[in-house]
Amino acid sequence: MTSRVYLDARAPLHPAAREAIIAALDEGWADPRRLHSEGRRAARLADDARQVLAEHLGCAAAELHVTPSHTASLHAAVAAVAAARRRTGTRVVHSAVERAALITAARTVDPDGGPVPVHPDGQVDLEAWRDALREPAALAALQHANPEVGTLQPLAQAHAATLDAGVPLLVDAGASVGHVDVGEDWDVLAADPTGWGGPAGVGLLAIRRRVRTRSVGPQDEEPWAPGGVSVPLLAGAAAALRAVSAGRAEAGRRRRALIGRVRACLAGIPDVDIPGDAEHSLPHVLTFSALYVDGEALLTELDRRGVAVGSGSACTASTLEPSHVLVAMGVLTHGNVRLSLPVDADEADADRLCAALPDAVAGVRSALGAGGL
Amino acid sequence: MTSRVYLDARAPLHPAAREAIIAALDEGWADPRRLHSEGRRAARLADDARQVLAEHLGCAAAELHVTPSHTASLHAAVAAVAAARRRTGTRVVHSAVERAALITAARTVDPDGGPVPVHPDGQVDLEAWRDALREPAALAALQHANPEVGTLQPLAQAHAATLDAGVPLLVDAGASVGHVDVGEDWDVLAADPTGWGGPAGVGLLAIRRRVRTRSVGPQDEEPWAPGGVSVPLLAGAAAALRAVSAGRAEAGRRRRALIGRVRACLAGIPDVDIPGDAEHSLPHVLTFSALYVDGEALLTELDRRGVAVGSGSACTASTLEPSHVLVAMGVLTHGNVRLSLPVDADEADADRLCAALPDAVAGVRSALGAGGL
Repeated sequence: MTSRVYLDARAPLHPAAREAIIAALDEGWADPRRLHSEGRRAARLADDARQVLAEHLGCAAAELHVTPSHTASLHAAVAAVAAARRRTGTRVVHSAVERAALITAARTVDPDGGPVPVHPDGQVDLEAWRDALREPAALAALQHANPEVGTLQPLAQAHAATLDAGVPLLVDAGASVGHVDVGEDWDVLAADPTGWGGPAGVGLLAIRRRVRTRSVGPQDEEPWAPGGVSVPLLAGAAAALRAVSAGRAEAGRRRRALIGRVRACLAGIPDVDIPGDAEHSLPHVLTFSALYVDGEALLTELDRRGVAVGSGSACTASTLEPSHVLVAMGVLTHGNVRLSLPVDADEADADRLCAALPDAVAGVRSALGAGGL
Repeated sequence: MTSRVYLDARAPLHPAAREAIIAALDEGWADPRRLHSEGRRAARLADDARQVLAEHLGCAAAELHVTPSHTASLHAAVAAVAAARRRTGTRVVHSAVERAALITAARTVDPDGGPVPVHPDGQVDLEAWRDALREPAALAALQHANPEVGTLQPLAQAHAATLDAGVPLLVDAGASVGHVDVGEDWDVLAADPTGWGGPAGVGLLAIRRRVRTRSVGPQDEEPWAPGGVSVPLLAGAAAALRAVSAGRAEAGRRRRALIGRVRACLAGIPDVDIPGDAEHSLPHVLTFSALYVDGEALLTELDRRGVAVGSGSACTASTLEPSHVLVAMGVLTHGNVRLSLPVDADEADADRLCAALPDAVAGVRSALGAGGL
């Protein structure tokens, strides 16, 4: 079996995460809430991991909360901030290109609300954003960068507007942490270990002390993850973030160059569109759409050629509905495929992808009877 | 360092779980909802694990749902059944000795409700149970066995009563699965991998097809664990359950004999009470209360002597409030310590415990000025 090229959003598990998880299976299997030696050892491992994660996210350890998943983080953050501020307002101001989990959570507390539109490059319309903040709101939510097309949002201006309005800003940095600096323009920050080579099964929420929250549902000692989370997985998330952060700048430059090569290769295929902003974007993410192509068929064809990619919306890939992100940007939604280069992606990966793409697209078009177009 | 004796409720990670988790970190790190080879491989691992777990729980794989923790299972089961049946009623009929997570979830949907009392041995009062079911109810909840004192509940009669009333019965089998047969007297069954040597970070809910549920909160592809769970942890839970089930009968007999020895040893210590029913109980669980003793101090003293035990309520150990279970049974709540023998507990463990107990109790009493009592 030849080696494969893997370019989907959940990064391969980083070797540092694997090592930390295995060590913590042996040292941190006990319940960290218990008072015996085994429990206190697990608690120390969890505390160490939280300290590392907090440092890399730019918050105090006491401001960091662990949840069962990135989706759970977004659901809980929206619900808890909205519950604490419901006397102020129930509206949730958010862009049209937020993750499905964020939009679903927003509609749960604000059924009549609607999104703030974005420009064709995916950046939120700041004028509309400021307008939406003129009425009382429970919270505002804007991603750090779009997980599908990579577009960075104008967070400095967006945060200035929410500060003016006195509304807490939730920033979904799920696609950004581990890859770029996320800065300090947030009041609540959601980070996703699966994006940087950490394991699935834990999500992270940093909540500034000044933000009021009230957890909803049955109360538990651990309101952000009732029953607690896996200490080994938390240790793995921390180890992976520390590992990728050390080489972040270099990995960013290298991957931006590789993305440039993929763009050039895609430019040679007819009727292919690359939405977003090539400059003001994440260094490792690219989505393209191909006319006369079914996204699932193209994914399968590339997979057969040894290349794993994401398809459809990054948040709802298995539903294969048209991406709400591309719809909101007003761009082509046919046959869209999402590429996310892991931190160690190299020239050989780009070569393999660029070698596979033209034939894969042509093959799918031919099978759909569009080969001669 | 001499070896330690570990007797707390979260069982040490079973070697079969450790092996399965590590294998699945390598083979099942990808998102099982994705369509590429890596995703499908993770999905196969998850499906295999679900199949094993469903067989051992006595349900169809389609009836098995995975959650982030046992606490999350109980919260979600109560909320989802109550939401589906709210036109029928909002009451939650449950015993007074259910886990704190179950009682908290019940009060969330049924704020004015109260528990059904238990007899001094911890068994639910069946007459009161049947009385409580005369009024319309959303659901009923009764544990398979009490996680603190080990008392088995009269589920055949309790289930007959809920069937008569047309009310679904949620059975918390968190302390039982992996140790005894849980039978089929349930409509919803919650099982806890940490009780049988599986990892923390996943919980299990078996829901009979006939039971209607409606998940609450923001909708997700995976309503029982929004964002999904860790495939490696799920694989570990399945491997551990398969491993312990093979020797379950023998491990039960061996541990019941060991518990008998511990009872005999405790009988030699003045002013010690062992609540519950020695016969109709789990083979591996025992709680004792010691007058003139602080539970936390005794736990610490035993820990210093190389023996790890649980303290206080099994569900709220870190709060050190009096156990609501012992209060409901009307027994001594002072200085209570919970023992849970892992499947491989042996004579040497019982010897170490029995050697440590008299001096540890005397030491704590002496420190508290009750040494001469």
